[in-house]
Amino acid sequence: GSSASKQIKKSFKSCFHGTKPGFRVNFEKFLSDFTPHEFASLIIKAHIALISCRSFQSLDYDNIENHLFLEEERRMGHMSFRCLEISRWVICGLIGVLTGLIACFIDIVVEKLAGVKYVVVKKSIDKNTEIGGMCISLILWAALNSAFVMVGAIIVAFFEPIAAGSGIPQIKCYLNGVKVPRVVRLKTLMVKVCGVICSVAGGLAVGKEGPMIHSGAVVAAGVSQGRSTSLKKDFKIFEYFRRDTEKRDFVSAGAAAGVSAAFGAPVGGVLFSLEEGASFWNQLLTWRIFFASMISTFTLNFVLSIYHKKTGELSSPGLINFGSFDLKYNIYEIPLFIVMGAIGGLLGALFNVLNYWLTIFRIRYVHRPCLQVMEAMLVAAVTATVSFAMIYFSNDCQPLETQKSSEDYSLQGFCADGEYSAMATAFFNTPERSVRSLFHSPAGTYKLETLGCFTLVYFFLACWTYGLTVSAGVFIPSLLIGAAWGRLFGIMLPYIALNPSVKVSCFLAAGKDAYQHSRFYFAGGIVRMTLSLTVILVEATGNVTYGLPIMLVLMTAKIVGDYFIEGLYDVHIKLQSVPFLHWDAPATSHSLTAREVMSSPVTCFNRVEKVGTIVDVLSNTSTNHNGFPVIIQTALCGLILRSQLIVLLKHKVFVERARSRLRQRKLQLKDFRDAYPRFPPIQSIHVSQDERECMMDLTEFMNPTPYTVPQDTSLPRVFKLFRALGLRHLVVVDDDNRVIGLVTRKDLARYHLGKHGLEELHLAHT
Amino acid sequence: GSSASKQIKKSFKSCFHGTKPGFRVNFEKFLSDFTPHEFASLIIKAHIALISCRSFQSLDYDNIENHLFLEEERRMGHMSFRCLEISRWVICGLIGVLTGLIACFIDIVVEKLAGVKYVVVKKSIDKNTEIGGMCISLILWAALNSAFVMVGAIIVAFFEPIAAGSGIPQIKCYLNGVKVPRVVRLKTLMVKVCGVICSVAGGLAVGKEGPMIHSGAVVAAGVSQGRSTSLKKDFKIFEYFRRDTEKRDFVSAGAAAGVSAAFGAPVGGVLFSLEEGASFWNQLLTWRIFFASMISTFTLNFVLSIYHKKTGELSSPGLINFGSFDLKYNIYEIPLFIVMGAIGGLLGALFNVLNYWLTIFRIRYVHRPCLQVMEAMLVAAVTATVSFAMIYFSNDCQPLETQKSSEDYSLQGFCADGEYSAMATAFFNTPERSVRSLFHSPAGTYKLETLGCFTLVYFFLACWTYGLTVSAGVFIPSLLIGAAWGRLFGIMLPYIALNPSVKVSCFLAAGKDAYQHSRFYFAGGIVRMTLSLTVILVEATGNVTYGLPIMLVLMTAKIVGDYFIEGLYDVHIKLQSVPFLHWDAPATSHSLTAREVMSSPVTCFNRVEKVGTIVDVLSNTSTNHNGFPVIIQTALCGLILRSQLIVLLKHKVFVERARSRLRQRKLQLKDFRDAYPRFPPIQSIHVSQDERECMMDLTEFMNPTPYTVPQDTSLPRVFKLFRALGLRHLVVVDDDNRVIGLVTRKDLARYHLGKHGLEELHLAHT
Repeated sequence: GSSASKQIKKSFKSCFHGTKPGFRVNFEKFLSDFTPHEFASLIIKAHIALISCRSFQSLDYDNIENHLFLEEERRMGHMSFRCLEISRWVICGLIGVLTGLIACFIDIVVEKLAGVKYVVVKKSIDKNTEIGGMCISLILWAALNSAFVMVGAIIVAFFEPIAAGSGIPQIKCYLNGVKVPRVVRLKTLMVKVCGVICSVAGGLAVGKEGPMIHSGAVVAAGVSQGRSTSLKKDFKIFEYFRRDTEKRDFVSAGAAAGVSAAFGAPVGGVLFSLEEGASFWNQLLTWRIFFASMISTFTLNFVLSIYHKKTGELSSPGLINFGSFDLKYNIYEIPLFIVMGAIGGLLGALFNVLNYWLTIFRIRYVHRPCLQVMEAMLVAAVTATVSFAMIYFSNDCQPLETQKSSEDYSLQGFCADGEYSAMATAFFNTPERSVRSLFHSPAGTYKLETLGCFTLVYFFLACWTYGLTVSAGVFIPSLLIGAAWGRLFGIMLPYIALNPSVKVSCFLAAGKDAYQHSRFYFAGGIVRMTLSLTVILVEATGNVTYGLPIMLVLMTAKIVGDYFIEGLYDVHIKLQSVPFLHWDAPATSHSLTAREVMSSPVTCFNRVEKVGTIVDVLSNTSTNHNGFPVIIQTALCGLILRSQLIVLLKHKVFVERARSRLRQRKLQLKDFRDAYPRFPPIQSIHVSQDERECMMDLTEFMNPTPYTVPQDTSLPRVFKLFRALGLRHLVVVDDDNRVIGLVTRKDLARYHLGKHGLEELHLAHT
Repeated sequence: GSSASKQIKKSFKSCFHGTKPGFRVNFEKFLSDFTPHEFASLIIKAHIALISCRSFQSLDYDNIENHLFLEEERRMGHMSFRCLEISRWVICGLIGVLTGLIACFIDIVVEKLAGVKYVVVKKSIDKNTEIGGMCISLILWAALNSAFVMVGAIIVAFFEPIAAGSGIPQIKCYLNGVKVPRVVRLKTLMVKVCGVICSVAGGLAVGKEGPMIHSGAVVAAGVSQGRSTSLKKDFKIFEYFRRDTEKRDFVSAGAAAGVSAAFGAPVGGVLFSLEEGASFWNQLLTWRIFFASMISTFTLNFVLSIYHKKTGELSSPGLINFGSFDLKYNIYEIPLFIVMGAIGGLLGALFNVLNYWLTIFRIRYVHRPCLQVMEAMLVAAVTATVSFAMIYFSNDCQPLETQKSSEDYSLQGFCADGEYSAMATAFFNTPERSVRSLFHSPAGTYKLETLGCFTLVYFFLACWTYGLTVSAGVFIPSLLIGAAWGRLFGIMLPYIALNPSVKVSCFLAAGKDAYQHSRFYFAGGIVRMTLSLTVILVEATGNVTYGLPIMLVLMTAKIVGDYFIEGLYDVHIKLQSVPFLHWDAPATSHSLTAREVMSSPVTCFNRVEKVGTIVDVLSNTSTNHNGFPVIIQTALCGLILRSQLIVLLKHKVFVERARSRLRQRKLQLKDFRDAYPRFPPIQSIHVSQDERECMMDLTEFMNPTPYTVPQDTSLPRVFKLFRALGLRHLVVVDDDNRVIGLVTRKDLARYHLGKHGLEELHLAHT
């Protein structure tokens, strides 16, 4: 353990020197030295080392109230604030409309592409019934799938790797205060939208709902800033909102609008945003988020109603529409729900374990973009092949009249005329339609073995698919597995099948499974999204009565699942090494104080500091600090950020200069806003030798009232302050107001591993 | 203005001397010197003066992390924390069950009593059809009503005045951090439950839903403390939870369980609690609150299903059950919703203005308990008389078969045989049944004039009833007015009546009206409960599709209503002078700093302080501080509360004593918990002259790490810190860590009037 630990440290040292690409290669080499088993045991340690790396910046969710800011605020009258408030509402409306339109676009294009694909394949299957022709159909199907997926994987792997997956983990990190690079850029949105269209049209076991949340967030970040840095277009509006605090509020609204568009669940969207992002509940903000969600659902609904030639009928609120359920449950079924929840928990744990090992495998061997594209194509081809085989070998034929007209692509397969293959309904369809069919088809539509095979195959397919380098969500697959499993359960227990609760059970199975899978899908470590998931499911089904059973199933599944393996996202977050702050400090952490937690010594600046000193400190890659306490003699008098210093250096706001050229323009808040959020690196700023001797007066630019804590403050207290206010730096001072340390996100996130005991805490200290 | 202001100040000076009853008389005398108009213009000033009075204490929602506490936490292992967590879940389950049972009890008793009453009156009416007999029936009805209401008003006015009204304002204040005396006591619960039964059975225009929220909160406060001080019974369990922080969490859960039981809306309950109470969203807490809500709905449902002999059919989730709606709305109706919302806003504003003047009248003239009881009886008698007159003069007869069997008390009235009076369905019924009838009866059940009269009369009755000294809610009356108005609207616009949206409109009118009324009902000043109200309405109707229209209507009503008069509760809160903290500091308050806001000079103690000094400071009624910074020389080193000092004095924890008797028991956290929450007044503690010369060492008991801010911190920043962490005292320090002031809730609440400009702020400073 000790030598391994040393090796890790040695290996991780490289990341302190800012050589990120090189480090990555080293890291991968280093990982390949271990067996998967050894590797797993080292993850915790690696995580701690990684958290200390500077790969993730934090966001400032606390306003920097320096003189410039306060002056501006004091100049503003009551009316200006009202105008700002109106702008906020307008922006939220825009976010809702744009998110809704994007959802429409994805929905329509996917339907069109999938329609073309299924019609072509269906024609081929219907035409060629002998074995040779079958092969042609199969190859056609697999090739079409692979082609779609290839396009999707290529744009993700080569152009914007951050667009992989559902994007929910990234948005959660953003709202939590971690700056994930490039996560809310226009390019990411483009890749995400095209990627999700390709992967769904490519027949993968994925959903298009998750990526909507990411899309909504990007839209929000773009609209609220009134400019696009990628397009080099600045509309000169909404300049007031160009800071992390305001931007986060809009991104929350965007994420909510995304959820709302995806599931037709505006309240669920609001809850999602609040659970993930807003640790401080502000009533006006909540109301705006709700507004954005409502507008988003409404836009989607309205545009789709026009598209479906039923203008004005607002009956399809979300991308996924489960149809309406009108069954009631009986109190005697409650134990049944609990049993289903427990089984769901077990299945979810199995899924997690499998995906965990798969992820480790991918980290070790599938890290090149080419390999990633190939893996995605392989999965697409295998999905087609397996589906084809399932339909081929299935003998579950159903008379054609029982099928609803909405499920278009009915395959006769190898059934008699006037019949269709039940397996094809499940496999030869977009996942959303399969879910609807599984929820609503009358009893007897599916045979036991059909459902069994489908559940089993789809379980492994979904597990394999999650983590591919494509842009896609896992909510629908998990719901699909759940629905199939629920039906299976209903058929297996004849006494349940006899009463109408079979559908309820079916739905509930979906719920619990969705939960288990969503544990990593919706990411968030300890945050398990249970409340918002319940609300989303209730809203998506349009039936309030299911609240209690859904909650029961979700709770049971959670308890059972947690017993075996933690939420998969907990593992993923460790692998990604995001310094994610959970809700509370670990329960047993009262014995730690700020003194033990903080980073020290701290680099401080004098209020009037030599330019040379500042440049040297900022250029020092081995420390790479982002916040610097400002002192008079020894007492703390303010806090200044790297980004502010860089703007100051760029504009050469030096005391000597100001004296020589009296007419020099005074630096405005606008200059900082224009530079936000992509501040140039220190290396790009040239400071001459003369200028190095100048002085810089930080008084106006520093935050003169940073939050401070005494050094004896307990970790939970520090944590609460940090988390509740969304801080980035918290200064630790002694009784005479001297700076003795600085607490940052990374110092607190380290201790979140301490859940299993205090060992990791000691390790983190060495 | 100036002389009036002086007079106010003079008059209010009395409250600084702790002579509260005397002050009250003076205050009322003082008020009677003004006309209502003058009075209204003085309210703002009076409010500021009152806030500075010490009539309301604050609660400590920040843990007091002194040595004793930290020692205990550090001793506790992982398992202890897990046990605590399980206890929390058990308590939440208990809260849910008990709240559900109370709801059942109220429901069943009200139904029984109202049933008996209506049967007796119906018999009398059916028997006596000539004018003389009519009078007897009328007198019988009025007498029965008055008798019920008298009982209800007497117990409220004489035994527990805090139980008047719905109790939601009080719970909101409690969750906000204001200690409203006696609000969560067992006695209050008893009076509340009996009071609400009497007032609903007494036929007042009130609902039984609001008081459920208060009841749930009292149950939660009782269960979580594991003892009842009123009953002098201590179960010696849950001692860990005997502090404000933990208690608040449970009270949130209780309030949510109350909402959930009242409306069958568990998610709405959670949102209500979060909107009102939890400024810091904690995921586990939310989950527990949701659990309590679910259990509460479930218990109510289950017990009622047994009572109604339909064991196991969980179809009536709340006290109020609107039945199911299955209409869809069309996009073309959206402008209609907005119009309805606007009219609702106007009506709501009218209601508010009327009730505002009525409240002023009541404060001036109806302040004795006897008068209050008489007014309540008068309202009861008038309600009966008006109802009777309406039925008598109404000629709206409907054939009996159109009526549903569930609406039992159909009155033939003056209709032909085989017919019943439509007016009687609305008036001769409990409000819940009337609402259901108005929502669901087929078109044509009510005539235009019937609805018009009903709306008008009920509007004024409800307005008069609100603010009586009875225990009752205003949600159902407002819903009833809204429902009647919606139907009226539907009939008046024939083209709307032609399509099925009449019901939707009807419901929406209810929504907006409920909102307008709930603005003061659900209290909360700026907090307008819009999100949770939407969710409650959606859940109560069991139909998710209504989300958007409800939100639109609520928003329009809010905007229109705000234009004319602020939410009525804003006025009520001013009259009650509660130092309620809103979400944010006023927008234009950046020009104020902690230095201007804080109270100073501050009474500080030395870390080792003379007992005599402490006793003198605590006994000084003119200052009556609750928190005292502790200093070494001049530097801040801690903060100690009055309640802690009193416990220390009571146990005579003096340094000299400790030396003389070495075996003296060391003071434990348990001693503080046993004294919580009713700490004795300083006057009850006898300290001898010798003891006055002793010293007291505060080191172990003070909070060694109080939150501090520099004196230049802007008001919004101070406010955010204070509000986000639920602080009670915030120490303002200078650069050398010397105490220069103390910010308390009252210092911040003062500035909340500054919404209309900065005038009040200056006034508050003089």
